[in-house]
Amino acid sequence: MVTITFPSGEKKAFQKGTSAHDIAVSISVGLGQNALSARFNHHTIELSQPIENDGTIEFFTWNDPEGKKAFWHSSAHILAQVLREFYPNCKLTIGPPVEQGFYYDVAFNGKAPSESDFEAIEQRFLEHASKKHPFVMRRVSKEMALDYYQKENNPYKIELVEGLDDENITFCDHADFTDLCRGGHIPHTGYIKSVKLLNISGAFWRANQSNVQLTRIYGISFPKQKYLKEYLQMIQEAKKRDHRVLGKQLGLFTFSTKVGSGLPLWLPDGAALRQRLEDFMREAQKKAGYDFVITPHIGHKELYVTSGHFEKYSADNFGTIKTPDQTEEFLLKSMNCPHHCEIYNAQQWSYKDLPVRYSEFGTVYRYEQSGELHGLTRVRGFTQDDAHIFCTPQQLNKEFKDVIDLVLYVFESLSFKDFTAQVSLRDPNTPEKYLGDEKQWEKAQNAIIKATQEKGLDYTIEIGEAAFYGPKLDFMVKDTLQRKWQLGTIQVDYNLPERFDLTYKGKDDQLHRPIMIHRAPFGSLERFVAILIEHTAGEFPLWLTPHQVGILCVGENHQKYAQKVAKSLEKSDIRTRIDMRNQTVGKKIREAEISKIPYMLILGDKEIQTNTVAVRKHRQGDLGSMSLDQFVGVLNLQIESEVSSFENNNLNQ
Amino acid sequence: MVTITFPSGEKKAFQKGTSAHDIAVSISVGLGQNALSARFNHHTIELSQPIENDGTIEFFTWNDPEGKKAFWHSSAHILAQVLREFYPNCKLTIGPPVEQGFYYDVAFNGKAPSESDFEAIEQRFLEHASKKHPFVMRRVSKEMALDYYQKENNPYKIELVEGLDDENITFCDHADFTDLCRGGHIPHTGYIKSVKLLNISGAFWRANQSNVQLTRIYGISFPKQKYLKEYLQMIQEAKKRDHRVLGKQLGLFTFSTKVGSGLPLWLPDGAALRQRLEDFMREAQKKAGYDFVITPHIGHKELYVTSGHFEKYSADNFGTIKTPDQTEEFLLKSMNCPHHCEIYNAQQWSYKDLPVRYSEFGTVYRYEQSGELHGLTRVRGFTQDDAHIFCTPQQLNKEFKDVIDLVLYVFESLSFKDFTAQVSLRDPNTPEKYLGDEKQWEKAQNAIIKATQEKGLDYTIEIGEAAFYGPKLDFMVKDTLQRKWQLGTIQVDYNLPERFDLTYKGKDDQLHRPIMIHRAPFGSLERFVAILIEHTAGEFPLWLTPHQVGILCVGENHQKYAQKVAKSLEKSDIRTRIDMRNQTVGKKIREAEISKIPYMLILGDKEIQTNTVAVRKHRQGDLGSMSLDQFVGVLNLQIESEVSSFENNNLNQ
Repeated sequence: MVTITFPSGEKKAFQKGTSAHDIAVSISVGLGQNALSARFNHHTIELSQPIENDGTIEFFTWNDPEGKKAFWHSSAHILAQVLREFYPNCKLTIGPPVEQGFYYDVAFNGKAPSESDFEAIEQRFLEHASKKHPFVMRRVSKEMALDYYQKENNPYKIELVEGLDDENITFCDHADFTDLCRGGHIPHTGYIKSVKLLNISGAFWRANQSNVQLTRIYGISFPKQKYLKEYLQMIQEAKKRDHRVLGKQLGLFTFSTKVGSGLPLWLPDGAALRQRLEDFMREAQKKAGYDFVITPHIGHKELYVTSGHFEKYSADNFGTIKTPDQTEEFLLKSMNCPHHCEIYNAQQWSYKDLPVRYSEFGTVYRYEQSGELHGLTRVRGFTQDDAHIFCTPQQLNKEFKDVIDLVLYVFESLSFKDFTAQVSLRDPNTPEKYLGDEKQWEKAQNAIIKATQEKGLDYTIEIGEAAFYGPKLDFMVKDTLQRKWQLGTIQVDYNLPERFDLTYKGKDDQLHRPIMIHRAPFGSLERFVAILIEHTAGEFPLWLTPHQVGILCVGENHQKYAQKVAKSLEKSDIRTRIDMRNQTVGKKIREAEISKIPYMLILGDKEIQTNTVAVRKHRQGDLGSMSLDQFVGVLNLQIESEVSSFENNNLNQ
Repeated sequence: MVTITFPSGEKKAFQKGTSAHDIAVSISVGLGQNALSARFNHHTIELSQPIENDGTIEFFTWNDPEGKKAFWHSSAHILAQVLREFYPNCKLTIGPPVEQGFYYDVAFNGKAPSESDFEAIEQRFLEHASKKHPFVMRRVSKEMALDYYQKENNPYKIELVEGLDDENITFCDHADFTDLCRGGHIPHTGYIKSVKLLNISGAFWRANQSNVQLTRIYGISFPKQKYLKEYLQMIQEAKKRDHRVLGKQLGLFTFSTKVGSGLPLWLPDGAALRQRLEDFMREAQKKAGYDFVITPHIGHKELYVTSGHFEKYSADNFGTIKTPDQTEEFLLKSMNCPHHCEIYNAQQWSYKDLPVRYSEFGTVYRYEQSGELHGLTRVRGFTQDDAHIFCTPQQLNKEFKDVIDLVLYVFESLSFKDFTAQVSLRDPNTPEKYLGDEKQWEKAQNAIIKATQEKGLDYTIEIGEAAFYGPKLDFMVKDTLQRKWQLGTIQVDYNLPERFDLTYKGKDDQLHRPIMIHRAPFGSLERFVAILIEHTAGEFPLWLTPHQVGILCVGENHQKYAQKVAKSLEKSDIRTRIDMRNQTVGKKIREAEISKIPYMLILGDKEIQTNTVAVRKHRQGDLGSMSLDQFVGVLNLQIESEVSSFENNNLNQ
């Protein structure tokens, strides 16, 4: 007998050799039907695997990321099977699951499929799936594996096999198809009820641009037909909300190949929106006792050697910038913290001066491969609403919690309700990725968890997601495609104060090290605006939106009145746009609706005679006539309900 | 006889061979005494030179830059003479006049003088001067010149001689001293009545950092003793006003060697002051119909190849930034115009849309040799209040004049009264320095001169000071050391629209090229703030200054009232700083005076009882007691008198 421990802590004895699947059935028939994959003693196993030892077991269904992963991994095998059937000359390379679906990278060596072939491939895929072929793992020797792929004349798999240890090579068979595979499948192909191939793109072998280019085919599959239907609806909606599409349509930002990929150019309406976000944050931070500083976008190499950035990042980042005489080297700044440390170091500090809070809308540059770039969410240059708090150990807990308050205030003011908090810790198995000693890490990690708990935040813990200099509390939100993005972040750092030799004089007249908090409530303004566009579908809160009121004249002889109304609204700080074109009112209304302008004023003879404005609300229609003062009242009421002033008592003069 | 034409246009005949000096005497005895140098047919000559042909003659006195140049050039000869006497092993290199005085670069090869030796050198200098030794030019052959310096074992002069054409080598003798020299002296040493050596620094031979380092000795001399006294007073005052000293004292900015020389770090009070300048400019520009954009601080090399910057600047600028895979090259942006051109190009334009005005506080990076860096006036990274106007030829004149209005508004709001306007044109003798064809340059230069004249501005014309893509109207101001700096600039450009293929559709339905105006009223925010500090000696206008009101408590039991007063003032947007320290009021007042805080409120028992504030004004003393409302009224009145709102009618919606 073996003793199996379940996640609840409950233990149960089973016959030695009972399969994981049978253990699932023993818990409930439902779980037996729904379990897609399992972990035994924290390692992914096949559900068919006989359990020979005592241990802990976890089962995953479609509702778990792990379950989806096994489902899509298994789907990739079937896709590969069909491609080999339809394109016998093709060479398979790798085919992993991704956040939404899976892909397979294939060297077609001749005619490759196009989107018009998708339907036939999907059909054949489902034929195979319906036959309920089990996925069966088997161990093979390196020699056998090499021999297999030499016969198949597949240089990619040979390269992969050569990189593996002899005792770690496994194949997976299903039906008549075999693939090199580490395992982690659903029990059989019959679980898959629907599939959709999504697109074809190019991908370099092993993501190296100097290697040969392969064809990548993306797909997604589901355990129920209706899930695919729902997914396709979501995609449809997401396309409408795609910030790249809306950003162009609303004239917010653009890109230019001459300027460079991943380097956004903010157009007037986008720059003004961003400016309002900055003003909003500046105001809240002023109330929270922050000081503003401004630092350059480059720094001497020496600065980043001191901070450790050069050691950790330089190989994968933009190269150094040399002076004409080649005597000095600079780097584009990838973080603002080293500059802020140097500002802190420009004077001497007493414990009475702390905390010091330096804030900056700092634009930083980080290299991303061009294939990774995506609208404003993944760029090569972005602006952080950054700040660094230098405080004493006694102040750390309060300062950290105050920052949580600020982040929550920002999220609330922008109606981000659907976020999750994630405590990102260091991975003790990869110490080379981090700076500083374990004891300090321990302290910093505990400080974050304590403050997060005291604020009553729900949070998950992610091992290995810390910054190289310290652990973080990250605020994650999802875009319309359900992809998770990090927005706000708060980090505790004992390392940089050490490396920059930051000090303050304590009550005891001795020099002490301050602790640094790095924080950015928006995270990156670019990414924040992207997510905001997708969340709101471009219908921004009234306080933020580029044009609050569209003024539409019925005819030419109403233009003067329209200008008077516009001037008057601008005096009340209302942003207007007059449409004076020679068009029908109907057309003007339709276009204002497309531009998502929250309010329209339609001005004709009647309005001039009664000195009123006829108000229409976006997507709601006619609100009737009112005086201009009444209308301004309506707007102000809405704005007040959207955004309140940040309350904080840090302003100690 | 020869016919001589004077600057007035008057002509007069002289005996052939009459010296320039005698011609000056013939005009007036005063001019004969005061003339320091002369130009004949636009070439600098010695006053002793006999005039053998017809031609135009100009005389220069101490009041002309040309006169000072001859005076200081001649002084450098005497300094060299003394140094050779006192340090027989020293090798002379070059010794030109500069904007304020002269220097000589010397290789001392052994003991070099220190500042403690200055007095002895000055004394000996004046002894020589008083002997009225004439400066006498003579032509020598290259062979003779080389022979002379080989005997002297002076490799520097030999290198200089070798670089000259045989027929162009002249020596200048005075007393027993000889130097290689192109000419341009005062008649004799007796004109020099006072001299002051200013400092010693290092300088590389031929300004090349890989060459040997020489000792540079700076000095200044005057034709009257009292001029030296006045100069030293000015220097004294300038030191007090030096923006580098005041910037530190007022906590406005700092530099860090780790971040890099010439890369300013703006401290909280400086960043806030700069932010207010930006807000001020943003407001004025909004009224003037500008749109704001935001662009990255780097651009693809391709962008600068298109713009021509790469061709003209790259050799003397920061090097390229490579991606890790070495496939792409970027450059730090040295100007914002290429980015704005790409924004213009992101959509199609009709003549009805123009003018389009893109404005950005754009931080740019330009390499300067470390020896050239100077506080905030000469830096490697600075922020321009930049904008580019894209307009039709018909709009050019009005747009240019509107920009002049904006510049004048800015200067007036910041009390810059002492500026000069300079029309900077291309030098027809160095066409390789410019882009574009002559016809376009002609048009652009005429447009600037016409608009400048129509606005009734006094202006000078400087040949060769144009930007590489077009002519400029520059606004120059002087710092406390009377050095001229360019602040505002307005430029007309036909070139970049061509290079970026910018178009708009005209009334005729054909594509046309817009004209671009580049403009920056502040010029660079860094330089502007530097000059502002020196002009105001750190006593900024009330609307701009970091802390408008210092609140000084008499004792501990007045702190609560002080905080109440501060809160109340902040609600009226008044920036306050409370001094709660346990110090005497006298000390607090003295420190507030040093911090140049415009107003102080002294709060004690009496003020609490009467609910008033006792007001002191910086450098003026007690203004008596008043209610808080009255005090706010005093402040607001002063602010209103300082800065008015910009009026402009470009806001055509």
